[in-house]
Amino acid sequence: MSNLKIGLFGFGVVGQGVYEVIRKSKNAHAEIVKICVSDLKKPRGVEVDPSLLTDRAEDILNNPEINLVVEVINNAEDAFHIVKTSLLNGVPVVSGSKAMLAQHLPELIEIQKQKGVALLYDASSCGSIPVIRNLEEYYDNDLLLEVKGILNGSSNYILSRVFDHHEAYESALRKAQELGFAEKDPSFDIEGYDSLFKLVIITVHALGTYVAPDKIFTYGISTIHDSDILYAREKGVKIKLVAQVVKVSEEHFTMFVMPEFVGPNKYIYSVDDEYNGVVIRGECYDRQFMFGKGAGSLPTASSILSDVMARLHDYRYEYKKQNYLQKPDYTTDITLKIYVRYSETNIRHILKFDRVLEQYMSDESNYIIGEIKLSELIAKRNRLHEKDLFIANIPIFFLNKDN
Amino acid sequence: MSNLKIGLFGFGVVGQGVYEVIRKSKNAHAEIVKICVSDLKKPRGVEVDPSLLTDRAEDILNNPEINLVVEVINNAEDAFHIVKTSLLNGVPVVSGSKAMLAQHLPELIEIQKQKGVALLYDASSCGSIPVIRNLEEYYDNDLLLEVKGILNGSSNYILSRVFDHHEAYESALRKAQELGFAEKDPSFDIEGYDSLFKLVIITVHALGTYVAPDKIFTYGISTIHDSDILYAREKGVKIKLVAQVVKVSEEHFTMFVMPEFVGPNKYIYSVDDEYNGVVIRGECYDRQFMFGKGAGSLPTASSILSDVMARLHDYRYEYKKQNYLQKPDYTTDITLKIYVRYSETNIRHILKFDRVLEQYMSDESNYIIGEIKLSELIAKRNRLHEKDLFIANIPIFFLNKDN
Repeated sequence: MSNLKIGLFGFGVVGQGVYEVIRKSKNAHAEIVKICVSDLKKPRGVEVDPSLLTDRAEDILNNPEINLVVEVINNAEDAFHIVKTSLLNGVPVVSGSKAMLAQHLPELIEIQKQKGVALLYDASSCGSIPVIRNLEEYYDNDLLLEVKGILNGSSNYILSRVFDHHEAYESALRKAQELGFAEKDPSFDIEGYDSLFKLVIITVHALGTYVAPDKIFTYGISTIHDSDILYAREKGVKIKLVAQVVKVSEEHFTMFVMPEFVGPNKYIYSVDDEYNGVVIRGECYDRQFMFGKGAGSLPTASSILSDVMARLHDYRYEYKKQNYLQKPDYTTDITLKIYVRYSETNIRHILKFDRVLEQYMSDESNYIIGEIKLSELIAKRNRLHEKDLFIANIPIFFLNKDN
Repeated sequence: MSNLKIGLFGFGVVGQGVYEVIRKSKNAHAEIVKICVSDLKKPRGVEVDPSLLTDRAEDILNNPEINLVVEVINNAEDAFHIVKTSLLNGVPVVSGSKAMLAQHLPELIEIQKQKGVALLYDASSCGSIPVIRNLEEYYDNDLLLEVKGILNGSSNYILSRVFDHHEAYESALRKAQELGFAEKDPSFDIEGYDSLFKLVIITVHALGTYVAPDKIFTYGISTIHDSDILYAREKGVKIKLVAQVVKVSEEHFTMFVMPEFVGPNKYIYSVDDEYNGVVIRGECYDRQFMFGKGAGSLPTASSILSDVMARLHDYRYEYKKQNYLQKPDYTTDITLKIYVRYSETNIRHILKFDRVLEQYMSDESNYIIGEIKLSELIAKRNRLHEKDLFIANIPIFFLNKDN
């Protein structure tokens, strides 16, 4: 077993957690020898030898002593530069930057292959839940049908406060930010982009197919109204922000991120607060459920530690689904059943429903329940985002002609 | 990637599942070339080419074409002979025989090391939940504090029927057997031995230490009375058969299998019917919860398939905890808080409590709640098993002098 000399990029909430966790784990055979920060003068939550700190990326990237780069910074462009440079130099990387990975995974997979160097990123996907590793290693066959879950701790925390504790949305959001669950830019969490990026990464390891984030319908929770919550309560369901990738036929799968009405008989119904929960469904094993802390400094850092320790044993992802299995194609030609609450605008002037099942109008609010193509939602998404309306998925078996 | 030529031992519920699952998975690069059964004339649930069947173990063990043995038979002695012979011949094995593994793991680990040949057995531990693989690969550091769970689907099914559906114990047991959840010998399930064997295997991968099954306190559910169920219902808790291994200090851990009062705020509270659920607790990641089908033909078989496919990539357990970490020692010198319901016999003539906290007596039944050493329970276990009494753990933080 070799010893790891680590160059760490980023010393915010997660970076400091990584520093703590590696120090705690006496047997990690790993040592952080350099930490690159953007502002050397910024006060830190943990005490650290000042000689470890630098603000010059080259001090890590050009340091021949360093044999592992750990990257947990916020800026996706900088993160991509760091990861790419390091891999091209032949130095393996552990990364937690989901936005960067979701954008650049195909190129980074190609570089890994060419250079024979490893990039691990289990921490990018569900904090402490080992989703990527399990999809890659354990569910590495073609029996997988669906991965579905609550992938964002912050928005789930907000929904829990609003739903179970009757708190106002704004106050719940503030609390999530105070507790450090929320990303710097809250729209990442509440508009569903954080979940989306994780879903893109998960799909590469679940089915072997990469789909660019901008091709995927993503709708968040920022426009939720009291009337939506009331409606869900009356129906005995909760509203959760759910990301899912589902095989709809032998050759096709679909994926999207949107609020969903979740009944009490579903595993994710009881995933509350800042927790994440993922359901993996397969042809023979039915449903597996994994549950754990999806946000926060130490849970994410312990996931980074698992990737760091995997490097002690020269572990790398083999991208088994991509390399060995028949990859299904992405389709948006599937029918969803959705709830749309709207004010003012007549929603039917924007969205073309295949079939309207229910329609309700009052002075307070209006809603419509109907069947609609996912492709129609994608085509109209810019117009949807401008309006005072709220969309939620009502899960059904997919009404796909292929199915 | 090589192609696997599999010799399968056992063609009961699980063996037939393995046959089905491998046939379903088009990309497994694996083929069953021989199936050894004890009775060639027994009718089978699935159709199979008769030329595949044999009743002579040598047809597999001495077959140079076969490069993987899959062993899912019930008889622990036969299983040990098969696995040992195959490993000594240099042929890797996938095994599902928990009783055999729990007894012989140290010797089998030694043979793997000497011969450089792999033995995989994730299916032995929680049906479709990948506990062993995750402990070995993902929680491969010294931050792990506890693994606790419901590891036996059959006894959990019975408790669910009795508890939630007000069914009689005997009828619930019969139903479990009819549904194929129960082991052939029901005492395996209901007396806690099945959970015990799994716990022994899990502990090797959780903490690196092997403890022989007969050193571990194991108490089952066969003596449960209506009054125990009534008591638990009044307190708002469920009774679950729980197996656990817990670090009680830096140097020591303890482990046991017994019924436990589980409150609604615990993850395992909602693990009902034939499901298994495992909580992994660590210093930084808090609690992870994994949940899935723990019994049945296809869930177990899909776990076997994962092990089979791992062999395509030459995967083997590295026994990381055993080889690289400071192993803690097993102790029974810890204090538990337990509930004992008894009739006739005065329980205090048998068990020496450190402290009695509550005592209740009536014409119907009596119970005592008190603190007791685990070592005392082990010392008296034979006398306990003869009596009409029921013991349940009331979880507390361990009152250990080391702690």
